[in-house]
Amino acid sequence: MALLASSVIAADYGHLHTQTNDALEAGANWLHLDVMDGQFVPNLTIGPGLVQAMRPIADTHDAWLDVHLMIDDPGRFVDTFAQAGADVCTVHVEACTHLHRVVQQIQQAGMKAGVALNPGTPLSALDAVLPLVDLVLVMSVNPGFSGQQFIPQSTPRIQTLRRQLNALGSDAFLQVDGGVKPANAKRLIQAGADVLVAGSAIFGGSASISDNIAAFRSALTLKA
Amino acid sequence: MALLASSVIAADYGHLHTQTNDALEAGANWLHLDVMDGQFVPNLTIGPGLVQAMRPIADTHDAWLDVHLMIDDPGRFVDTFAQAGADVCTVHVEACTHLHRVVQQIQQAGMKAGVALNPGTPLSALDAVLPLVDLVLVMSVNPGFSGQQFIPQSTPRIQTLRRQLNALGSDAFLQVDGGVKPANAKRLIQAGADVLVAGSAIFGGSASISDNIAAFRSALTLKA
Amino acid sequence: MALLASSVIAADYGHLHTQTNDALEAGANWLHLDVMDGQFVPNLTIGPGLVQAMRPIADTHDAWLDVHLMIDDPGRFVDTFAQAGADVCTVHVEACTHLHRVVQQIQQAGMKAGVALNPGTPLSALDAVLPLVDLVLVMSVNPGFSGQQFIPQSTPRIQTLRRQLNALGSDAFLQVDGGVKPANAKRLIQAGADVLVAGSAIFGGSASISDNIAAFRSALTLKA
Amino acid sequence: MALLASSVIAADYGHLHTQTNDALEAGANWLHLDVMDGQFVPNLTIGPGLVQAMRPIADTHDAWLDVHLMIDDPGRFVDTFAQAGADVCTVHVEACTHLHRVVQQIQQAGMKAGVALNPGTPLSALDAVLPLVDLVLVMSVNPGFSGQQFIPQSTPRIQTLRRQLNALGSDAFLQVDGGVKPANAKRLIQAGADVLVAGSAIFGGSASISDNIAAFRSALTLKA
Amino acid sequence: MALLASSVIAADYGHLHTQTNDALEAGANWLHLDVMDGQFVPNLTIGPGLVQAMRPIADTHDAWLDVHLMIDDPGRFVDTFAQAGADVCTVHVEACTHLHRVVQQIQQAGMKAGVALNPGTPLSALDAVLPLVDLVLVMSVNPGFSGQQFIPQSTPRIQTLRRQLNALGSDAFLQVDGGVKPANAKRLIQAGADVLVAGSAIFGGSASISDNIAAFRSALTLKA
Amino acid sequence: MALLASSVIAADYGHLHTQTNDALEAGANWLHLDVMDGQFVPNLTIGPGLVQAMRPIADTHDAWLDVHLMIDDPGRFVDTFAQAGADVCTVHVEACTHLHRVVQQIQQAGMKAGVALNPGTPLSALDAVLPLVDLVLVMSVNPGFSGQQFIPQSTPRIQTLRRQLNALGSDAFLQVDGGVKPANAKRLIQAGADVLVAGSAIFGGSASISDNIAAFRSALTLKA
Repeated sequence: MALLASSVIAADYGHLHTQTNDALEAGANWLHLDVMDGQFVPNLTIGPGLVQAMRPIADTHDAWLDVHLMIDDPGRFVDTFAQAGADVCTVHVEACTHLHRVVQQIQQAGMKAGVALNPGTPLSALDAVLPLVDLVLVMSVNPGFSGQQFIPQSTPRIQTLRRQLNALGSDAFLQVDGGVKPANAKRLIQAGADVLVAGSAIFGGSASISDNIAAFRSALTLKA
Repeated sequence: MALLASSVIAADYGHLHTQTNDALEAGANWLHLDVMDGQFVPNLTIGPGLVQAMRPIADTHDAWLDVHLMIDDPGRFVDTFAQAGADVCTVHVEACTHLHRVVQQIQQAGMKAGVALNPGTPLSALDAVLPLVDLVLVMSVNPGFSGQQFIPQSTPRIQTLRRQLNALGSDAFLQVDGGVKPANAKRLIQAGADVLVAGSAIFGGSASISDNIAAFRSALTLKA
Repeated sequence: MALLASSVIAADYGHLHTQTNDALEAGANWLHLDVMDGQFVPNLTIGPGLVQAMRPIADTHDAWLDVHLMIDDPGRFVDTFAQAGADVCTVHVEACTHLHRVVQQIQQAGMKAGVALNPGTPLSALDAVLPLVDLVLVMSVNPGFSGQQFIPQSTPRIQTLRRQLNALGSDAFLQVDGGVKPANAKRLIQAGADVLVAGSAIFGGSASISDNIAAFRSALTLKA
Repeated sequence: MALLASSVIAADYGHLHTQTNDALEAGANWLHLDVMDGQFVPNLTIGPGLVQAMRPIADTHDAWLDVHLMIDDPGRFVDTFAQAGADVCTVHVEACTHLHRVVQQIQQAGMKAGVALNPGTPLSALDAVLPLVDLVLVMSVNPGFSGQQFIPQSTPRIQTLRRQLNALGSDAFLQVDGGVKPANAKRLIQAGADVLVAGSAIFGGSASISDNIAAFRSALTLKA
Repeated sequence: MALLASSVIAADYGHLHTQTNDALEAGANWLHLDVMDGQFVPNLTIGPGLVQAMRPIADTHDAWLDVHLMIDDPGRFVDTFAQAGADVCTVHVEACTHLHRVVQQIQQAGMKAGVALNPGTPLSALDAVLPLVDLVLVMSVNPGFSGQQFIPQSTPRIQTLRRQLNALGSDAFLQVDGGVKPANAKRLIQAGADVLVAGSAIFGGSASISDNIAAFRSALTLKA
Repeated sequence: MALLASSVIAADYGHLHTQTNDALEAGANWLHLDVMDGQFVPNLTIGPGLVQAMRPIADTHDAWLDVHLMIDDPGRFVDTFAQAGADVCTVHVEACTHLHRVVQQIQQAGMKAGVALNPGTPLSALDAVLPLVDLVLVMSVNPGFSGQQFIPQSTPRIQTLRRQLNALGSDAFLQVDGGVKPANAKRLIQAGADVLVAGSAIFGGSASISDNIAAFRSALTLKA
């Protein structure tokens, strides 16, 4: 049983209502929103205003808004994204001097707290917060741009984290983002992930959004 | 004769194609795109991906994409926004250590180079680059959020800059952004501005985009 | 008619209640509190907790707490110092990207807004905010440490600012800080200052606080 | 056998001499001084001047001045705090790019070198310096403010560090700071801590400093 | 009467002794050393070690070492370059929060204090320190790389600064750096400069260093 | 079988061609180039221009240019050093937010990718990238200055890394830099290093470069 989060960064910004509606209609479970500040990552994307505009669309489908903050010192913006309607708020361990405080702050703002790891960051960076978090995001590409190739070393990282979460008795989500496609989706779930993020595999290419999501549904069983 | 730039930051992000099309259809001349990085200003908004999605809409109406970079060290992103299709690229004097270099870089990338001033920045900050630039943007609110009140001290700043540009024989645009409405539009043109940026006065409130732009057309003569 | 602000940075931190009480008792008008962050200036001093502890002492004497923020990006702490009980909050133009916004923020928090200039900063840096501020602070030493020599070029800077404030019809205070002593106090008032900050000349040396303030009273007429 | 360090941040800044004297008189062993720069942590507190003013009080009681630097790049200020009279100087691993160099620098300046860990930082961050340091500080709240609740995950962290120090044959102090009270003091010592830092539990509330410290003495055996 | 400073950045780093000796032998007056940190400017060049290696060569010819710091917060390195043997130390106004302090610091370290302006920086940035400095450097290219074209707007900037220095009765050097060649050398001296910096015009191209300097001597009268 | 890299930072900058030629002639295998930016480390040294000048000398001897970037955010300069002719490019884990991306970037630019560790950094910081890198550099002094004492804790770090590399089947180089001399060279090779960096032991002191390298050859077997 898996969840599919459709990553808005790869959608057509002129028609986001239609595109995200189509994705949720076709069975995607969450909308994934990549916030980039041009400092933590070498790209700029979206902010709280766009998240807020997605809230009613998500509500219609009872879907979650899953906000991934690729920004420096994310604690500055946690309350703002809570007010914009985020359900999940994920921050990077590399961007937080006070990681425990930020996790607390996210949860106190009423959101699920996620922590993300860049591909070059050791898993041990999570040691102190793993028991507390609601989601772990394994980046399987270096964050910044959509459409990159999956980094193979990510699979053993997912396996290790799955073991660690199970050992803690944690029911945190284990999410993977970067180069996820129908062709590797099942393997990632088997490795231990339970939320797959897909962007260009849903909104890119010449096939319809609905067909693209159907391809994921063929590869694995999505939660209804 | 004035130009009206409709500021996408105040539009509905779910239906940007329709909203920006309506604005240009109704007579707005440019699309104004506010890029914020959460560092130079306390908000995050949009990036090159969204600008690129506006390019075909602008092309249909022969309109300009007018990108206002409210980001630190904007030289890092000048080429990216050129590739995204910007016609005008405006940077803040407060964000540039090498202001002359950035102006050169924008022009060499094939765009019009604008320089923006925060309300608290002295006009003398422009002394060395005024002869070179294609646009001066007088911020009439402190940048970061749409829907703020016009700062009255902005009007004499526009008047002074108009005199300085005329004295130089410069045909640079003189743009004003912040709290611009039909009620003060004429005064701003009379003070010397020739490009008005409006956001919530176009996309906000209960009236239609088309009616909102009609209100500007009643207040002043827009370029056809 | 002048105001004397006694600068707590030079007092004995073990006995601040007694020392500041003595200063106010002897005729000092304000308590001046130098907040340094080790980034904007090469020293660390005090924070809102100490300011708050001074509030009841100031209240007893109907004196103002005059907080001078020598910190980067001071807007982050404006509300905190308002809650701590500051009457005046002064920020450095060199530390503010959005100087107008910070001035607004200070006034909206119910405090008098001051702007300070380092000795090497041109007076023109104040052009856009001079009409709005409640106090201008001319640093007559490079900020960071008490007990330095008065920089002679400060006197013509005071004279020019006095002329500018008069021309604007502004009743903002004109404050000077750094190397102020009874021996130069009168000259500074004649140059146009109306608030003198003194630290080591009040709390340092072997004479009593009361005698030190008496020396200022001999040199000039303090407001009762 | 434990040491109690009374944290001056929670004392009355108007009467520090009396308050710290009372604490040491009543049996507190060290004075703990929290230096915050508003950058590493979201608060500003004290600097070398205040530390220096505590030196004679500490001398009277043969007590140590235990300085906890919650500042970015603390190496810049190590010599300054040595000159101010610090006996222990503790820096945060999260604030040091060259952690080994800073530890060396502290020891070469004649002080005991401490390293502190935020609650979200993995213990493995200390791997390379644990054999060298004189003190390890486990933060049991997120640093910045006094009066917060003890984070329960801190106890196993103390236990693990105690085992690691014993395995190394190290006699470094193991200090805990944040939410420490008479009610949990014994458990912390049993977990392996040997220096407890208390602020509001000593200087706050309505009981006298002497009674507050007596409560700690009832809970555990302080070094005479 | 002019001074010619040969800029080592354009020399052959494998044979600096020979190359700089040739330049001084042929009549160049100073060695100009461009220190870049990859932060203030987008290039990295040399540091105090290389400056120190030039000291004996300069001594042989009784020439000055003229160090141009294109680095952030240059006060950190002033004493280091004094110890390395610099005669002149020039800092950028855009890199200094405390410009007056840095000028003092350079002079107290026994060097001549220079201040440099980027091409986009208003001359008014120098208002407060012009009476104190020993050298003003007008950058006539954007700093970072050798071999760029002279920016024509630099000439009126030199003229204005010459008038300002004369009005102050200052005997500070007025130096120009960037795109200086025999072909424009005389014009720059006529505009008011008295120290010309040349790099690729001396060390680049196929002619000998000695011939290149002879070309400058034909264009103007160098100090013997 | 070992490689000896001669560190140019300790050579005479006036005669680099001769000095580096002598070192390679005498049997040194690589030229090691320490790039420092005054931010990541408290010293400034050299940049791409100097590296480029070493390229022909290295070519003559079929030697590698081994560039060690002690700079913040080194990804900004990777392509520049590739163009300058570097064979190996080593970055610090402490300086990289996106360590995996930088390693990829170096390899895609055609260079060997090295990662360096400060003495206080845990080896676990390398966990995620160890399988990918071409070289690991164990700093055995705190980087910034040549001529420091070898830190004894470095030896077990080399041993552990050697075991880890062997376990991975990696043929990455294991390099050590800092306080390396003929007297400790053999022990370092026995601990598992295969590339020794020496600066002052080659270029410093009164013996000739050739004799200094002969001393290394006596201590161990260098690759021909």
